[in-house]
Amino acid sequence: MLVTEQESGALDREACLRLDAEDPLRELRSRFELPDGVIYLDGNSLGPLTTSARERVERVLREEWGGLLIAGWTEAGWLEAPVRVGDRLARLVGAGPGEVIVSDTTTVNLHKLAQAALRARPDRKTVVTEAGNFPTDLYVTECLERLAGQGWCVRRAAPEALAGSLDDDTALVLLSHVDYRTGRMHDMQVLTRAAHDVGALVLWDLCHSVGAVPVDLGGCGADLAVGCTYKFLNGGPGAPAFLYVARALQGQLVSPLWGWFGHEEVFAFAESYEPAPDVRRFLTGTTGVLGAAALEGALEVWDGVDLLQAREKSVGLGQLLVRLVDERAAGLAVEVASPRDPERRGSQVSLRHPLAAEAVPALAARGVVTDFRPPDLIRFGLAPLYLRYVDVWDAVEALRSVLAGLGRPG
Amino acid sequence: MLVTEQESGALDREACLRLDAEDPLRELRSRFELPDGVIYLDGNSLGPLTTSARERVERVLREEWGGLLIAGWTEAGWLEAPVRVGDRLARLVGAGPGEVIVSDTTTVNLHKLAQAALRARPDRKTVVTEAGNFPTDLYVTECLERLAGQGWCVRRAAPEALAGSLDDDTALVLLSHVDYRTGRMHDMQVLTRAAHDVGALVLWDLCHSVGAVPVDLGGCGADLAVGCTYKFLNGGPGAPAFLYVARALQGQLVSPLWGWFGHEEVFAFAESYEPAPDVRRFLTGTTGVLGAAALEGALEVWDGVDLLQAREKSVGLGQLLVRLVDERAAGLAVEVASPRDPERRGSQVSLRHPLAAEAVPALAARGVVTDFRPPDLIRFGLAPLYLRYVDVWDAVEALRSVLAGLGRPG
Repeated sequence: MLVTEQESGALDREACLRLDAEDPLRELRSRFELPDGVIYLDGNSLGPLTTSARERVERVLREEWGGLLIAGWTEAGWLEAPVRVGDRLARLVGAGPGEVIVSDTTTVNLHKLAQAALRARPDRKTVVTEAGNFPTDLYVTECLERLAGQGWCVRRAAPEALAGSLDDDTALVLLSHVDYRTGRMHDMQVLTRAAHDVGALVLWDLCHSVGAVPVDLGGCGADLAVGCTYKFLNGGPGAPAFLYVARALQGQLVSPLWGWFGHEEVFAFAESYEPAPDVRRFLTGTTGVLGAAALEGALEVWDGVDLLQAREKSVGLGQLLVRLVDERAAGLAVEVASPRDPERRGSQVSLRHPLAAEAVPALAARGVVTDFRPPDLIRFGLAPLYLRYVDVWDAVEALRSVLAGLGRPG
Repeated sequence: MLVTEQESGALDREACLRLDAEDPLRELRSRFELPDGVIYLDGNSLGPLTTSARERVERVLREEWGGLLIAGWTEAGWLEAPVRVGDRLARLVGAGPGEVIVSDTTTVNLHKLAQAALRARPDRKTVVTEAGNFPTDLYVTECLERLAGQGWCVRRAAPEALAGSLDDDTALVLLSHVDYRTGRMHDMQVLTRAAHDVGALVLWDLCHSVGAVPVDLGGCGADLAVGCTYKFLNGGPGAPAFLYVARALQGQLVSPLWGWFGHEEVFAFAESYEPAPDVRRFLTGTTGVLGAAALEGALEVWDGVDLLQAREKSVGLGQLLVRLVDERAAGLAVEVASPRDPERRGSQVSLRHPLAAEAVPALAARGVVTDFRPPDLIRFGLAPLYLRYVDVWDAVEALRSVLAGLGRPG
């Protein structure tokens, strides 16, 4: 285990370079087109460009759109892209073929699946979510309560009190697997079981976990999930989101956003809506081909990657960062805001500092890209496919220097 | 007038070449990357690639996503793309700055604006639309009636009976400006006034008119509009759609799909939803940057184009096609299904033939790309920015040859 090795050996920059030399994933970095001189620790916000994504989009432009024109829908497979790319993504979330589609945004997909779930439990009215969930998740549930006019109500429970807040009026439990600020990770198996124990459906938001930690929707018996693809999956800015519906539920759930791509036969131009028999019923309008293509290209990088190996490296990077902050940034008013136990943490480490808002641009000026989340968090995204242990070392050195200089007159 | 000239002079291929030589828009064709040997008459389904769209996307890939990474949201203007590209599109639909955004799909935008309009007229329950409207428009209204549970009901009126079907229970009139099958065009001014006369709001679907005919939403006093950008605007396959909300209405209407990009302050990560004060309240999730970039690049072609000149050429191409079919395809069982009066027709001519489904692939095999719409229509999209009069001549010659051969044993 790399973590053990770090803990036992002397910890200096040379040790980090040795860890990189032994990293079984080290070759993957060459698949990314990272700018020179940048240590990119914001892949939890926007993953970087891969060569395969760039080439795939360029091919769509020149050969498919430019060359095939309208025939691209059939001859280049654009029409099947939502299912084909979804199937490619499925392995990363423990889903089977035909359980995932790529479509719309996370927000729109949350609306679709939350409403569908609530209508599937008509004798129950409560959505349980967590206080501090990602804003758009909170807004979707607020919208259900305040606008939809169906008597639905929302309970925001503290993350540690979730299981105890469920009852026989709970129709849906909507949770983010990994918290966007601190990286705190829920136990999907336990909370899914808790939801099922009271007869509720569960909808997991995987934005901050897909591609970052192993996810096993099938193994957990999860009902529904959504997620974005522009973070750890590197699908590109505003890449299409995905949604998952467990196969057994697909025939029972009705999308609240009927549209022609969700019809059982798109090009029949039928005058009455008949939903597709499968997960495609959650499609809405015409597939955005460029966005789907970038994602499809980006997912090529994952082919053959052992997800447990990726997780092991992610944990190794995180434990290294925590240890270096403890050892080398002591006295600089910085504290670890993420769970220290890697089993309870996604692939990011957040640090708390009263001048975090100033530290982030100062780090960026030194080529260390992190991000700020109000009021006082510096987030370090730890993407295992392209980051090196030495990057963590260098980032902490830059952090020490920046924090030591903060508040001093320039 | 080119049409008059056609009608007075001898009509042969040479005459068409002369019309092209005199075409004030002739230089624009060089902005498009059209495959050799193809006469592309399907720009009403998917507009072709422009050099400016391709270059814009390639720049986003290499310089913005690849080079700026997360900073692209601010430094490359991704965050403002929905409004910036919307403003650029506004001139083409007679809208003012801040009245149009680019976002989501036409289907999702129809749901947003139709629900918002109905909630703004709470004492009325009826949506009037037209029989034969585009399927997704019909599905959206069906969804309102059958799923939303608000007592909303839908009346499908015959296109010629629309004005007479409105009454004081009509909350919303949802119409396609140009019919997707026949190209029949509504009088936007007259029908908008008819809707307003009964106190209803009107929502125009401009999918088949934007970039094809002059549209004056402001001049007509239209309330709401949506449209796709992948047809006559050449935004690319599945390009983001747009929506228009008249400025005076923006503060009154509430989106039914709350999401973080519609919040008044996206990056405040506020826990409660507060809609943006303006049209941005109809944004949902994260902007799809690649799709928006392709559209933004494609719209460059329209800079400086006199829309009345484009319309004049579109009419000229259409009248030429109708005349050639009348004169040269007589006896081939083909008839003009579109209105013959160009004032009542968008930028397409549809022909009816019992073997239309066979004729379309046979034409494509000769490099003439049209499309088929059930049960018996061949559609000829007449995009004035890149089509030539001689293309219409050559297409009709190919059609004559194909129709003459249909049904004969191969």
